[in-house]
Amino acid sequence: MIEPDKSRRVYDGRLFDVVVEEWDGREREIVEHPGSTAIVAVDSEGCLTLVRQLREPVRKHLLELPAGTLEEGEEPLASAQRELEEEVGLSGGRWRELGAFYTTPGFCRERMHVFLVEDVERGEANPEDNEDVEAVRWRVGEIAQRLSELEDAKTIAGLLLYLQSQT
Amino acid sequence: MIEPDKSRRVYDGRLFDVVVEEWDGREREIVEHPGSTAIVAVDSEGCLTLVRQLREPVRKHLLELPAGTLEEGEEPLASAQRELEEEVGLSGGRWRELGAFYTTPGFCRERMHVFLVEDVERGEANPEDNEDVEAVRWRVGEIAQRLSELEDAKTIAGLLLYLQSQT
Repeated sequence: MIEPDKSRRVYDGRLFDVVVEEWDGREREIVEHPGSTAIVAVDSEGCLTLVRQLREPVRKHLLELPAGTLEEGEEPLASAQRELEEEVGLSGGRWRELGAFYTTPGFCRERMHVFLVEDVERGEANPEDNEDVEAVRWRVGEIAQRLSELEDAKTIAGLLLYLQSQT
Repeated sequence: MIEPDKSRRVYDGRLFDVVVEEWDGREREIVEHPGSTAIVAVDSEGCLTLVRQLREPVRKHLLELPAGTLEEGEEPLASAQRELEEEVGLSGGRWRELGAFYTTPGFCRERMHVFLVEDVERGEANPEDNEDVEAVRWRVGEIAQRLSELEDAKTIAGLLLYLQSQT
């Protein structure tokens, strides 16, 4: 097991903490993050659901895959299913993992699992009531031509993994 | 311009700071990061150069695109060219931007520019002297089959953007 010699917590936050670790005399500043999921959700009509929301850190509205942070003890698949229903009111369908990756391994522990769900169904939740998150639908066939509209790494990686899996 | 009502610095670090911003009564914890670059470097023999290095935050050696953090006032292209030569001793070639994205826009400002350089040349630097970073070469034709060996988001996104640009 690869482990640091020492570790001290320098910031104790709500969403994440920051620790400074010592590794053979080198100091590393690290954002502790519980991990996350993102979902490529395709319905039986061949439409993909994305979300548009204000991302305060970058001062912009971004178009992204539905995504969320793991709650304590939560399995990635269960978390993804919960987030998709809460965020855009989609449930059911056939699920599988497209891939998993570290989002920024130079300074953060976050590992993200990307799932594909096909034949997903509109549930009882009404995402239009959520003023903060706007659901946006794209036809699956448009994805390759519309990549330049995306500015979020997980969304670009997740959709390209999806397209790759279809060839 | 979209801006917070208030902002206070809660952690002042070496690689990054953390601020807490107030937005219409909502608090947002944000990692301030200067931005970064990553490079898809292909030589005239059709080989891609990756780097394998210990990423302490995730307790693992990862295989990644060469990449680095912007220095103050530095342009992304100049930064990418500097990093590529410092990290793996490659210089010259024909450069263009493949894309740019936010790595984790939910809690961090980092914007990353991904460049492609073709016909890159081995320079005088000797990357083998660098014990921390091992250069790894893949044939360009192998990339699609070897994606499952990658666990880093920028590397997956960058290489898929490259493959997409070749079709």
